[in-house]
Amino acid sequence: MQEAAPQSFDRVLSSMCTKPHPAAREAAQRFLSANPGDPATYGTVAELEERAVELLATVTDHPDPETAPGYVASGGTEANVQAVRAARNLAATADPNVVAPTSAHFSFTKAAEVLGVELRTVPVDDDYRADPAAVAAAVDDDTALVVGVAGTTEYGRVDPIPELAAIAEEAGTRMHVDAAWGGFVLPFTDRDWSFADATVDTLTLDPHKFGQGVVPAGGLVARERETLDALAVETPYLETPSQATLTGTRSGAGVAGAVAAMEALWPDGYRKAVDTAQANADWLAAALADRGYDVVEPKLPLVAAAVPDDAFDALREAGWRVSRTAADELRVVCMPHVTRGALREFVRDLDRLADD
Amino acid sequence: MQEAAPQSFDRVLSSMCTKPHPAAREAAQRFLSANPGDPATYGTVAELEERAVELLATVTDHPDPETAPGYVASGGTEANVQAVRAARNLAATADPNVVAPTSAHFSFTKAAEVLGVELRTVPVDDDYRADPAAVAAAVDDDTALVVGVAGTTEYGRVDPIPELAAIAEEAGTRMHVDAAWGGFVLPFTDRDWSFADATVDTLTLDPHKFGQGVVPAGGLVARERETLDALAVETPYLETPSQATLTGTRSGAGVAGAVAAMEALWPDGYRKAVDTAQANADWLAAALADRGYDVVEPKLPLVAAAVPDDAFDALREAGWRVSRTAADELRVVCMPHVTRGALREFVRDLDRLADD
Repeated sequence: MQEAAPQSFDRVLSSMCTKPHPAAREAAQRFLSANPGDPATYGTVAELEERAVELLATVTDHPDPETAPGYVASGGTEANVQAVRAARNLAATADPNVVAPTSAHFSFTKAAEVLGVELRTVPVDDDYRADPAAVAAAVDDDTALVVGVAGTTEYGRVDPIPELAAIAEEAGTRMHVDAAWGGFVLPFTDRDWSFADATVDTLTLDPHKFGQGVVPAGGLVARERETLDALAVETPYLETPSQATLTGTRSGAGVAGAVAAMEALWPDGYRKAVDTAQANADWLAAALADRGYDVVEPKLPLVAAAVPDDAFDALREAGWRVSRTAADELRVVCMPHVTRGALREFVRDLDRLADD
Repeated sequence: MQEAAPQSFDRVLSSMCTKPHPAAREAAQRFLSANPGDPATYGTVAELEERAVELLATVTDHPDPETAPGYVASGGTEANVQAVRAARNLAATADPNVVAPTSAHFSFTKAAEVLGVELRTVPVDDDYRADPAAVAAAVDDDTALVVGVAGTTEYGRVDPIPELAAIAEEAGTRMHVDAAWGGFVLPFTDRDWSFADATVDTLTLDPHKFGQGVVPAGGLVARERETLDALAVETPYLETPSQATLTGTRSGAGVAGAVAAMEALWPDGYRKAVDTAQANADWLAAALADRGYDVVEPKLPLVAAAVPDDAFDALREAGWRVSRTAADELRVVCMPHVTRGALREFVRDLDRLADD
């Protein structure tokens, strides 16, 4: 154990997590034994969590960031499960369904299985975005939630959130935006995705992804208090009356790291990171296209390209942490730790290994 | 933010978490950006998690620790929810119920709400332990799980696990033991609680409680592989086929800290910590009884005593982090960070404040 060191991020191209900001790491180290799940005992970290939620609400253009309901979850999966759970609990039907594009993260499959709701996935359009007509056709009286993704896991696409929210509103159902990965990228683009852009009930965005916090730190922000009320379970033995989170004990390090990263980087630091990441993604996409690979245009800092399986396997054997889309494309997430130098080296290795 | 420091543990008497072992803190600091939820990317922490599960299985007398199924969860709540979820998914009935004593942790209430199963709580006996006759009476054809607690949250009691497991076996249903807090205490007592003592299907024990890891680190250990199979959801975009956890991203720090603490302390360090904690609890119980308070005998290192509300409130105002049982008793958890000196000071403050 003494010798075990985490691998370097140098060749990690597959992760939506990244090297934390130094301030996040430093803050996290001081909160390795604090539990935000027990605020009456661990008051300092509870106050930090209030600040974290205010910052998350600011990033997402919440109408009232200072009183926005939300919490720091373990990640996007927990936040998405909770959004579905709130919708299920607030729905009038006994047989609720959730309508989401096929591009939605697998956490919605997990949510449906855990919570006993039906997940209706509907096709995306030619640019991998949710098709509003297909969503509208899938919605019925038992629909508890419409899901839009703002920064998809495979291709970094942003669904037409205002159109989807209008469908949800028309149907009298709730609207959730999964911006787990995109949340700290989209404020620096012209995309519509936030509380200010549409009638969104809940929104996921993860400090431990482009937020550059430490792992684990996800975020759930709700428009209205009723969302958290719908999740609350009574908590005997704690000197607080109820708990709205999915887990009980939570990461104080994650909370402290999230606050430190957001205070250090919002907004200018994030803007700079996004600009660099997008430039890197554009460079990689061009380099791969030059070599004759079919590339999906990186509208956000995520590149997918049709690279043969043999080359993919050889790259992994050479130590590159890359992963694949469902359509078997190579997928590179240009997180802040991914440098232009690393991408150049990656392309050199690809040239060498694809020839073998 | 820069100034925010976690409060000291000096006056924390209400928490089931504790100051981490120095080796745990050191290991955790190196894994603040590793995600055990993505083992194909973060291979080092994935190997550490295998070691963590082997150690947890050793502590719980699993018949085959080296291949024991399990994982490091965010805490006892997640582990308990997952035990209920596995039981629900493996049950033949469409309307499953879970039978647990009223002393079971509130995470079972949360599990029932989240998972859509019925929770049947049955009375405890005069010593706050599950009553096997009441459990047997509550079990029916729709029962998916019987829960026993090995170290209850309020009084530190150990349910008659072999009797409860026999009831579960007779009924053809699964058996779960919640030893979230007791798991690192009970190996040094003569209690029956582990895989070796009864036919237990799943067991919760938390490295971040008496295990002295960092927060968050809970543990779920299963007797058979089918438990994790029943929880698995497919995971596109990850280079691993499925994920059996409730959350997606998880704490690398929690995993690394758990391994470091268990390697440093199992078994002798834990034995010493338990002996000291029990002696402290016995001392506090005697001191409170001497002063005329009704005290519940601390069979494990947890003291409950009927202290008037005024004195309780005054103690909290004086900075003591104490909490209450459902019956409104003062509750002191003698975790490793709780010293005899702190308890002496606490009793002095109680004497002073109760007189006011």
